[in-house]
Amino acid sequence: MKDVNIGICGLGTVGGGTWEVLQRNARIIAGRAGCNLRVARVANRSPRPDLGLGDTPFSTDVHDVVNDPAIDIVVELIGGYDDARRLVLAAIEQGKHVVTANKALIAQHGNEIFDAAREKNVIVAYEAGVAGGIPVIKAIREGLAANRIQWLAGIINGTGNYILTEMRAGRDFDEVLKEAQELGYAEADPTFDVEGIDAAHKLTIMASAAFGVPLQFDRAYTEGIANITPYDITHAEALGYRVKHLGIARSREDGIELRVHPTLVPEKNLIAKVDGVLNAVLVDGDAVGQTMYYGPGAGDEATASAVIADLVDVARTVSTDSAQRVPYLGFESDAVTDHRILSPNEIRSAYYLRIQALDRPGVLAKVASIMSENGINIESIMQKESELHDGQIPVILLTHTVLEKQVNDAIAEMEALPEVEGRVVRIRAENFL
Amino acid sequence: MKDVNIGICGLGTVGGGTWEVLQRNARIIAGRAGCNLRVARVANRSPRPDLGLGDTPFSTDVHDVVNDPAIDIVVELIGGYDDARRLVLAAIEQGKHVVTANKALIAQHGNEIFDAAREKNVIVAYEAGVAGGIPVIKAIREGLAANRIQWLAGIINGTGNYILTEMRAGRDFDEVLKEAQELGYAEADPTFDVEGIDAAHKLTIMASAAFGVPLQFDRAYTEGIANITPYDITHAEALGYRVKHLGIARSREDGIELRVHPTLVPEKNLIAKVDGVLNAVLVDGDAVGQTMYYGPGAGDEATASAVIADLVDVARTVSTDSAQRVPYLGFESDAVTDHRILSPNEIRSAYYLRIQALDRPGVLAKVASIMSENGINIESIMQKESELHDGQIPVILLTHTVLEKQVNDAIAEMEALPEVEGRVVRIRAENFL
Repeated sequence: MKDVNIGICGLGTVGGGTWEVLQRNARIIAGRAGCNLRVARVANRSPRPDLGLGDTPFSTDVHDVVNDPAIDIVVELIGGYDDARRLVLAAIEQGKHVVTANKALIAQHGNEIFDAAREKNVIVAYEAGVAGGIPVIKAIREGLAANRIQWLAGIINGTGNYILTEMRAGRDFDEVLKEAQELGYAEADPTFDVEGIDAAHKLTIMASAAFGVPLQFDRAYTEGIANITPYDITHAEALGYRVKHLGIARSREDGIELRVHPTLVPEKNLIAKVDGVLNAVLVDGDAVGQTMYYGPGAGDEATASAVIADLVDVARTVSTDSAQRVPYLGFESDAVTDHRILSPNEIRSAYYLRIQALDRPGVLAKVASIMSENGINIESIMQKESELHDGQIPVILLTHTVLEKQVNDAIAEMEALPEVEGRVVRIRAENFL
Repeated sequence: MKDVNIGICGLGTVGGGTWEVLQRNARIIAGRAGCNLRVARVANRSPRPDLGLGDTPFSTDVHDVVNDPAIDIVVELIGGYDDARRLVLAAIEQGKHVVTANKALIAQHGNEIFDAAREKNVIVAYEAGVAGGIPVIKAIREGLAANRIQWLAGIINGTGNYILTEMRAGRDFDEVLKEAQELGYAEADPTFDVEGIDAAHKLTIMASAAFGVPLQFDRAYTEGIANITPYDITHAEALGYRVKHLGIARSREDGIELRVHPTLVPEKNLIAKVDGVLNAVLVDGDAVGQTMYYGPGAGDEATASAVIADLVDVARTVSTDSAQRVPYLGFESDAVTDHRILSPNEIRSAYYLRIQALDRPGVLAKVASIMSENGINIESIMQKESELHDGQIPVILLTHTVLEKQVNDAIAEMEALPEVEGRVVRIRAENFL
């Protein structure tokens, strides 16, 4: 299998995560990409002995990566504007493809960078710059390619969404911000997040990809959340709304709206229910209607997931002559495994059971003992005298996760009890853990 | 600009929608694809004069499309198993790429079809087969390529989800099913939907793409929703759960779970809040964590959106020699327009306003008259005697959508009133219409 050589510039949170995931999932990623994504050089201002870089060549100067002729793809994870711009332009000049997680760089210097890249026929990919691990740039540029995109709206800053979520309990902005800083959700200088600048970077990029216009970050309108009070949040809720810090881009006949500000959102809309540090982007296309993309908008491995998706994209494009850029089932045929499908009895799940029991003493004890003998732990159990009907009271219980066979055996035993009428109702429950 | 020639087989709901969207958005789609997606031949059992096919060659035999040497991509929208299988294999045999919306075909015959396609080095794309307009196959095969996908769970049948949503109001399955049939959400024979067969087709495909295993539809476990009662729905809700018809695929050390059945889902999980005919797929990857993809899972143009996304994907892959398969901002540089960004005063939005008014007669009338003079319609207004504080009672109102300038002018006038104290609080509101 062919190698595609990657050089990682910057081993901070995202750089470290990218290294880790590339090592841990090397086999899966190669199976998907059709080639090995080999980290051939890394650079960081200071060493990262904790990462276990082994024999991988290490430099303290990121330009060593750009100047290494073996490198096919440069991964820019140093952040900031000027140094990152110079680094990316130098990589392009050397004819290398670039993957970056730097939203500020793309929002501010993207037009210049893309012009240079077009000239050199290299790819510059930036999925990780917008909404962390959520593949929303891919959705906009590819998945929704049939659509005239009319507007998009996103919760694209986790810090701001965490603060507004916590303020619903009646707490003040300043108090929650302080807590967010202690928890590591907010920076010591929170301006970028709470004033909407970070969100405006991401919004600018999404709007350009959605509407086909040049990047114009300096024309984006931003308004922060510092002036939002629990009082207004409460009153907005009384009107049927939640307050969210949204980035909104809308294409109109006479121009494009590009704005980040606190926004009342109807509580029935799914995006109103996106709480805490999570991100979500709602996109309205004329053919598809409204679709939404939801997930972690930050974090080491979540962002690394997007960086590596871009690496796989570049590798799939440059390393194959086949028409099948993406393998039919996502994996190259020699990477498809014959992992067997389990039978129903082998399923592991939690279960909701409803037992129609006669109103006689000792029934609950018998049920509990059958469950226990079958090794089933009960999460909760409910039996209400008020539901007595025709001499029966239903026993409703929820189990911990067990093997389906255990539950089926227990049900057969319960149905055989003289105090139990008819069939036991069994519905699986899933806690998504 | 180069033409890529498309032949559409089947002009039913999705075929008609595909034709419509390709015509309406031809310029946008060409700007994204870098070539014209030209419909060079269509075939349908009966004519569709309503579609305005113009000079486009029309046949009643779909094999005319496959046998037309001008056609580059065959779009299979005839549905069913056997005829569709023969058609797709014939197209592949002719060296043509295939785009299909047929989940049953892929779930049942995908392994055979992909083997044939690999042999001929042609693409077979099937995004439209899973979750309608939601680009979830793209997310799984590409956007999450870095991840060991551990499980996925989806509401992937709109009919079933509509019925379960309506049953929350205490209505019986049979009654809601009848209504769904009258509304056109359910077929006259609802077996495919309510027994989970349709969902199992989609789940089988997603699981194979997520885990890298062959398609094994016959091993999927299905259980329908016909036995779910409002009684159990109510009791599940008392325990903090909603009942959803989920497709769940989980990769375990000892095998893969592949199952469709009614499931209790914690009400706090976002997927529990996906109601009505909408679809959503939650995917858990080891690097990214949980992401969710939400939107319309059926419908003419929603499904057409996915068909055309696949067409653009194929066209981008086969029609360019450039490394930039996808243009930097989603559109080819000559398709990028200079649509201007509007200034804040030109924004159109609804507004939440809070006015700190002295408790004097006539204040509400003055506020209302200022709004009216500025051409602003009020959606709702709230003033509660019980909120009297320091001689002030806040007036809270929500406007219809207006120009921001109108609201700013009205605010300036209100702030000048002797009965109004301090600044008027202004927060934008968005109804996503």
